[in-house]
Amino acid sequence: MNLEKRFRIEPGSSVDLSSFDAGFHGDYKNEADAAIDLQKHLHRISKLQRKLYADRGHALLVVLQGIDGAGKDGTCWHVISAMDPQGVEVRGFKQPTPEEKEHDFLWRVHAHAPQRGNVAIFNRSHYEDVLVVRVHELVPKDVWKPRYDFINEWERLLAVENNTTILKFFLYISKEEQLERFRLRLDDPDRQWKISESDYKEREKWDDYIKAFEAALSKCSTRRAPWYVIPSNHKWFRNLAVSQIIADALEDMRLETPKPAVDIEEIRRLYHQASKEENKRG
Amino acid sequence: MNLEKRFRIEPGSSVDLSSFDAGFHGDYKNEADAAIDLQKHLHRISKLQRKLYADRGHALLVVLQGIDGAGKDGTCWHVISAMDPQGVEVRGFKQPTPEEKEHDFLWRVHAHAPQRGNVAIFNRSHYEDVLVVRVHELVPKDVWKPRYDFINEWERLLAVENNTTILKFFLYISKEEQLERFRLRLDDPDRQWKISESDYKEREKWDDYIKAFEAALSKCSTRRAPWYVIPSNHKWFRNLAVSQIIADALEDMRLETPKPAVDIEEIRRLYHQASKEENKRG
Repeated sequence: MNLEKRFRIEPGSSVDLSSFDAGFHGDYKNEADAAIDLQKHLHRISKLQRKLYADRGHALLVVLQGIDGAGKDGTCWHVISAMDPQGVEVRGFKQPTPEEKEHDFLWRVHAHAPQRGNVAIFNRSHYEDVLVVRVHELVPKDVWKPRYDFINEWERLLAVENNTTILKFFLYISKEEQLERFRLRLDDPDRQWKISESDYKEREKWDDYIKAFEAALSKCSTRRAPWYVIPSNHKWFRNLAVSQIIADALEDMRLETPKPAVDIEEIRRLYHQASKEENKRG
Repeated sequence: MNLEKRFRIEPGSSVDLSSFDAGFHGDYKNEADAAIDLQKHLHRISKLQRKLYADRGHALLVVLQGIDGAGKDGTCWHVISAMDPQGVEVRGFKQPTPEEKEHDFLWRVHAHAPQRGNVAIFNRSHYEDVLVVRVHELVPKDVWKPRYDFINEWERLLAVENNTTILKFFLYISKEEQLERFRLRLDDPDRQWKISESDYKEREKWDDYIKAFEAALSKCSTRRAPWYVIPSNHKWFRNLAVSQIIADALEDMRLETPKPAVDIEEIRRLYHQASKEENKRG
């Protein structure tokens, strides 16, 4: 199944999340059924990311967004597990620092845009400035409203000027699934630290968040920087979908491993010569 | 004379530099005649920049561009001499480093955009990417052409999102004045190091540079980030004009020194109390 096409938000379309099924898992019956395809995609990512690093002509920016508990950390961990850390930066964007607050909202993300040859994964991103900021009215409407245009123009800059492929994933879980995940955390001593009272407070704003996500998905899915709505109730399907879309995007770059800068045959001859001489001495 | 209005390029107008007089010096007869006004403007800058730093609600970005020898360094030095270094960053943009080249052209300048409360002075800037880059065809036309729009949108971001006042000065000297300055450098042992063969090579491209400047001035003078063409054959007049425009812009911000966070009267009483007790002991 072409997941890329199926989950991509058509530029200019108006998104209504209630028409999406967060529990969708395609033709796969379960995790075991999807395991081979998942490994195939991870293997492609692994090979292609090394080629991206060698080629140095393209950059890849992956943006992960989703409501609390949607699995941003898990997806991050999963995707980079296939990559050579040398060419990847994972960057989380939390509440802005006092210094960051004294700049425009794109300043801190621009600094971490990937250079050509590299991958950057944003765990939360500039979209927080039209999500949590909008829901909690941290700035007035006449400040957050123009941000959609600024975002589109900035992403266009990365794409046009720096050959950056931009993939934005909205990890979509249902309200019931979120509660279930919070419950599991409560029972897991290793993950209790992730719980905060605000998680439960934020749930009260669920509908506002959905509205803010719908606006971002509708206004900021562009040909060069599309949004994907990934059904994420099933973690294994979420990982499969994200991996497939990333692998396909890397393939579309038609990366070339550069030719060696030296004459390989010449080097080979030198090695041969040296080993012959050593043999004589030995 | 309202130099701000006189030298500002009207947004949307088409600039023909041959109609500008690089030797213009207004109603002033000579340097001595302008000295008092110049000191007045520097004094205003000095006072207002400290207020800007305290107020923390506005930022100021000053961009200096001009052909070799036009006096960018001198203007820089002159303008910051009036400011408290704590709140000012002067940033020169030379040939991009290999790392910078692996990013979009606005990446390196965005990192140095001023935070609110501060002043940034760009000695050369993102405009080099539509000036020297265009003249020497360092990238193909279909790469530099879209940059004017990217520049306008980025400057709009700084203005709208971060309350940044942007003043862009094109220091305009005549071709004869440039030669004269190069000659003076040759005879000055302290400044001979500034001379390079490329200076004279670049002179051959004079007309191409003028054309590139005219394009940048025409396409990128906007209401929020205007270009000023400063007649710069006379250094003293150039300094006067730039200082006056900067001082006026700072004044237009209507800066407020914030109220002290403590009760000054209470502190005063405490000091008074303490000194009375010391007197008793003494």
